[in-house]
Amino acid sequence: MPRMTKLLLQLQAAADRRHGHGSGLGFVPGAGRRHPPTPRHASAAGRFAPSCLVLCLLALAAAATTLALALALTLHRHVPDPAAAAPGASPRGFAVVINTWRRYALLRRSVAHYAACPGVDAVHVVWSEPRPPPEHLRRAVLNGTRRGIVRFDINGIDSLNNRFRPIRGLAADAVFSVDDDLIVPCSTLRFAFDVWRSAPSAMVGFVPRMHWLADPRGGGTKEYRYGSWWSVWWTGTYSMVLSKASFFHRQYLDLYTNQMLPSIRKYVNENRNCEDIAMSFLVANATGAPPIWVQGRIFEIGSSGISSLKGHGLQRSRCLNTFAAMYGHMPLVATTVKAVDSRKSWFW
Amino acid sequence: MPRMTKLLLQLQAAADRRHGHGSGLGFVPGAGRRHPPTPRHASAAGRFAPSCLVLCLLALAAAATTLALALALTLHRHVPDPAAAAPGASPRGFAVVINTWRRYALLRRSVAHYAACPGVDAVHVVWSEPRPPPEHLRRAVLNGTRRGIVRFDINGIDSLNNRFRPIRGLAADAVFSVDDDLIVPCSTLRFAFDVWRSAPSAMVGFVPRMHWLADPRGGGTKEYRYGSWWSVWWTGTYSMVLSKASFFHRQYLDLYTNQMLPSIRKYVNENRNCEDIAMSFLVANATGAPPIWVQGRIFEIGSSGISSLKGHGLQRSRCLNTFAAMYGHMPLVATTVKAVDSRKSWFW
Repeated sequence: MPRMTKLLLQLQAAADRRHGHGSGLGFVPGAGRRHPPTPRHASAAGRFAPSCLVLCLLALAAAATTLALALALTLHRHVPDPAAAAPGASPRGFAVVINTWRRYALLRRSVAHYAACPGVDAVHVVWSEPRPPPEHLRRAVLNGTRRGIVRFDINGIDSLNNRFRPIRGLAADAVFSVDDDLIVPCSTLRFAFDVWRSAPSAMVGFVPRMHWLADPRGGGTKEYRYGSWWSVWWTGTYSMVLSKASFFHRQYLDLYTNQMLPSIRKYVNENRNCEDIAMSFLVANATGAPPIWVQGRIFEIGSSGISSLKGHGLQRSRCLNTFAAMYGHMPLVATTVKAVDSRKSWFW
Repeated sequence: MPRMTKLLLQLQAAADRRHGHGSGLGFVPGAGRRHPPTPRHASAAGRFAPSCLVLCLLALAAAATTLALALALTLHRHVPDPAAAAPGASPRGFAVVINTWRRYALLRRSVAHYAACPGVDAVHVVWSEPRPPPEHLRRAVLNGTRRGIVRFDINGIDSLNNRFRPIRGLAADAVFSVDDDLIVPCSTLRFAFDVWRSAPSAMVGFVPRMHWLADPRGGGTKEYRYGSWWSVWWTGTYSMVLSKASFFHRQYLDLYTNQMLPSIRKYVNENRNCEDIAMSFLVANATGAPPIWVQGRIFEIGSSGISSLKGHGLQRSRCLNTFAAMYGHMPLVATTVKAVDSRKSWFW
């Protein structure tokens, strides 16, 4: 029986039964310098001034040509709009779910940004304080946004599990889960949504992480270590994308809250960590497939988070091993796939 | 109602009810030169030999350093094997469906190649000649391959629709559809399969094409033009990946053969063209989503095909317009997403 079909049948069955704190900050990858410096072989130089001159002139000519060509291409390539090219296709939008915790200034900036992005048809603020949001904050947050687009989802208890509580009345299937201190530019967000549309059962996001075997040669027991951004950069390999900046199907909210092992939610609640790893386990276990890492620059507007605390790596590794024990196996699947915008990538 | 869920329910319902000629050759994109020549600003040169010397020396040093660094990274980055990193995840394999027509030498090379790729658990040869394959060919094709892995699927009638006939007894959900004159290296094939695993409802392939509005400013009627590889390269935008080198879910074979408008199959049969466009329409219409273009070098081992014939572009445009009229709308969805191997891409 196809696993994918089975999953979506489960999702379907759950369809009619239908919010936290940042998961950590870490190093945020962005589009960065797109082209690495190409190694060039310079001739021996020094006493060969005439040939050096010829070489330099040739280099100058080549550089000028390349620059002119690159400029011409840049000026022209961004003209066609895919949406305009395929007017029959008007994809539905998505909801942005912002997880916030006592950082009101960040929240105001964040909501103002996402509410103004094309394609966003709802912004949900996951509120996890004993008191409801103060009126001045509520007014400041709603100020200037489209009527009815922003909503506070109130939780009396502070729990990281809140960010994955099912949301009633969502118009679309896609949810973009994000921390209050992360700004993803609208065009980058839209691109990630395009990726998700083709891969609606996957988690699609900007912050990849990896799990590694502590001893790859293996003994009887398998112990896992959490791989940070640098390990992903070095190896090109990842098995999670963090929910602090990722798209997933809204029905995973129901699976997380109502179907996942309660012991996992309890662990997340008690340890105030790893709800993102729990969601990655859930999706990988349901699909048997890896997530998708989307290339794109994202911006941190805050400066503190649990990932900057001492012992963060150890805690995350502990989560990996605890959850794997609870599942009875390691569901995470590693991959090396990166989704890039072909308009920004010249060679194929 | 989530469209994706609906689609997979339909696929599920069709699950228990359970083979052409090359679609065209065109320009085959490959990984090519990965890094474009960086424009460099050379100084005025000529009479400034000493400064030229200094510049050349600096360039030499920079090049040596970069080369050393690149080599060091290259030597190290390919060590970790994602499959080894996540031993709990042993993804199932996939079937390769080779469409062939009277090119026996190509077929032998093609089968020998794909049958030896890791992850391939079946190779199906779509045979579309009045006579069954001659015994010498059958023996030559099966020679050296794993026992039982290769099978001829016999069709007495020559029709492009044969390549999409449902195949009984497939062990896995993924089908890699390929022409007999196209060789995708095993590692590239495996990478595309990784992409498909995360996006099992999408077509995932190496040959992107686009549809364009003949007059974007629009009149009352919409006329579409077929966009070749060059238009994709120029704009970074595509809406189809051709079935001559793409992965898709096996259940689309059933949808194509048993559910799609019979008038489309009839058109494909009579015009001996556009079965790939028909499949692209089918998948886009079912999912409401675009396909996924995978970056990777693929190789043509033949030199003739219908895409090299005069009037190919016109014929393809005619198919687009005919199919859109049959559907009552244009289901194709444009995108700019390209899946690249993050092990081969240094900057994020």
